[in-house]
Amino acid sequence: MYSDKDRARGVDGTFMWLMEEVGELAAALREGTKAEQAAEFADVLAWLTTIANVVEVDLSAAVRKKYGSGCPGCGQFVCHCDDSGKP
Amino acid sequence: MYSDKDRARGVDGTFMWLMEEVGELAAALREGTKAEQAAEFADVLAWLTTIANVVEVDLSAAVRKKYGSGCPGCGQFVCHCDDSGKP
Repeated sequence: MYSDKDRARGVDGTFMWLMEEVGELAAALREGTKAEQAAEFADVLAWLTTIANVVEVDLSAAVRKKYGSGCPGCGQFVCHCDDSGKP
Repeated sequence: MYSDKDRARGVDGTFMWLMEEVGELAAALREGTKAEQAAEFADVLAWLTTIANVVEVDLSAAVRKKYGSGCPGCGQFVCHCDDSGKP
């Protein structure tokens, strides 16, 4: 939707926009309505996707690779890792 | 996959994990391989999804609502907004 603009802006400029939206999400989580929170989540995901597009990373494939077979720690779809571990 | 842990951790604790992953993504964008970048993108999206789950926001629906009919500014699927505007 924004690919021409995204490429012109580059990774650094686009990352700044992501950070601005992350800040707005934090504010919405503190005191926003559910609808405001949803809009900010959408914006953060949009900018994350944008950066992935700029560096030519397939975001869907990346998630599938890391989490598509379950928790990377214990390999199960409901995580049974020790609570002391990350996350 | 992590819903019990996520709820116990709450929004604030989960947001801290998101921030850590955003930092790791920034580092990977600077000097990581494509595979390392992809893994960090996956982690950021995973934590974003986690927070949405904790506050019971449907992330897919949120994106559909905000961007499913095209650019919120000009309404087109290839944005034609004035370059001086955001983004």
